[in-house]
Amino acid sequence: MKAMPESLTKDQFAIKTVGIELIEAEPGKARAKLRLEEKHLNGLGIVQGGAIFTLADFALAAASNFGSPAVSIQANISYFKAVSSGTLYATAIEESRTTRLGTYLIRITNESDELLALMQATVYRK
Amino acid sequence: MKAMPESLTKDQFAIKTVGIELIEAEPGKARAKLRLEEKHLNGLGIVQGGAIFTLADFALAAASNFGSPAVSIQANISYFKAVSSGTLYATAIEESRTTRLGTYLIRITNESDELLALMQATVYRK
Amino acid sequence: MKAMPESLTKDQFAIKTVGIELIEAEPGKARAKLRLEEKHLNGLGIVQGGAIFTLADFALAAASNFGSPAVSIQANISYFKAVSSGTLYATAIEESRTTRLGTYLIRITNESDELLALMQATVYRK
Amino acid sequence: MKAMPESLTKDQFAIKTVGIELIEAEPGKARAKLRLEEKHLNGLGIVQGGAIFTLADFALAAASNFGSPAVSIQANISYFKAVSSGTLYATAIEESRTTRLGTYLIRITNESDELLALMQATVYRK
Repeated sequence: MKAMPESLTKDQFAIKTVGIELIEAEPGKARAKLRLEEKHLNGLGIVQGGAIFTLADFALAAASNFGSPAVSIQANISYFKAVSSGTLYATAIEESRTTRLGTYLIRITNESDELLALMQATVYRK
Repeated sequence: MKAMPESLTKDQFAIKTVGIELIEAEPGKARAKLRLEEKHLNGLGIVQGGAIFTLADFALAAASNFGSPAVSIQANISYFKAVSSGTLYATAIEESRTTRLGTYLIRITNESDELLALMQATVYRK
Repeated sequence: MKAMPESLTKDQFAIKTVGIELIEAEPGKARAKLRLEEKHLNGLGIVQGGAIFTLADFALAAASNFGSPAVSIQANISYFKAVSSGTLYATAIEESRTTRLGTYLIRITNESDELLALMQATVYRK
Repeated sequence: MKAMPESLTKDQFAIKTVGIELIEAEPGKARAKLRLEEKHLNGLGIVQGGAIFTLADFALAAASNFGSPAVSIQANISYFKAVSSGTLYATAIEESRTTRLGTYLIRITNESDELLALMQATVYRK
């Protein structure tokens, strides 16, 4: 993996609080994972939507923060299947990039490569 | 506040891991808050998008989980302003409800009532 | 109504092809209407989603095109209720504005003020 | 192309008013096209967002209306590049399907296969 932007390595929420690990990052593409534990579950015993969102958002940050810094301005996520254990993966791919704007698709899957959620997000570069 | 659905009180991710507190919940309307700490920040020193999303998602769950259980199937969030300290509030309001589907707007504000983010989300009831 | 931006009066698709009429426009707020005819219906005999979207998009353009030109970069729409006749209204309100970005909510209603659809959209100013 | 659902052939808005043509349809995948004319342009002389949305929405309807009827309940579209002439194509692919819900990605391209817009949409089956 190329050098990860330093801002990512210091993401306390994604890395420490939630426990996400970056496993691949290059301009326009990144992959992160999250090993599910009890602390990620909601009251129904399934992974909380915010944990899945954070995993996808971290992959997005890793794929888009090359060159000038990029901040998310909008994200749309659809949830397909609930899970309560195992490891989740998020793969972010750049679909479009202009000077200031970029759009990414992020697929969230489990170890069997089943699609659990799909995010479409926009970043802005100052 | 009316009796909070038990499933909400057991949300380990929102309540314990992230530290969100529900402050109001009735059918179709709910309000939650998050006191920002270092653990909610990203590598740029501002609150991570996933923490804001989780706050909004928890208010959504509280507003929609009356009667039959509701699960989020889609959420779209726009971010307007970055913050790094203080307390955040999310207020969820039901905009539409049919037998199986519901749509909600969730406004995320700071202590000065500035709008920091806005979420539009859909839930599904089995 | 203040002077409508000239670019709006020349919108052939919204005005001529679809038949939308602007009824109010000021910075950050606009209202448009569409009298439903057979030509707006889909194969199920209800108004096609694209007609509703275009109505909302035109109100968005009218609310956001003051000062520098604004182009839509993203829109999320939820549909609640199908209709096949009558007049539809779209009311766009600015929720956030920075130098380059703006976010708007657009409510689509019928003559009885029932909420038929809701759009959240982002514009970009060069 | 397999037999197109009759409801699609009767879509007056998409087919007659806007001028969209379906070129491929099978369960979970469909492709439609729109030859741009003056009537599709907005006041800036570029194709109106509602025309692009309608093209994508028609491909979505063709990909999802096999078996029980499906109605769109939500769609999120991002716009990347403005065009004013030529032919546009929309390709809809099913990403997820349960008994009642389905999620689709729709890519809108020009004749050079450049990605002009991207839609993520949810349908509901009664």
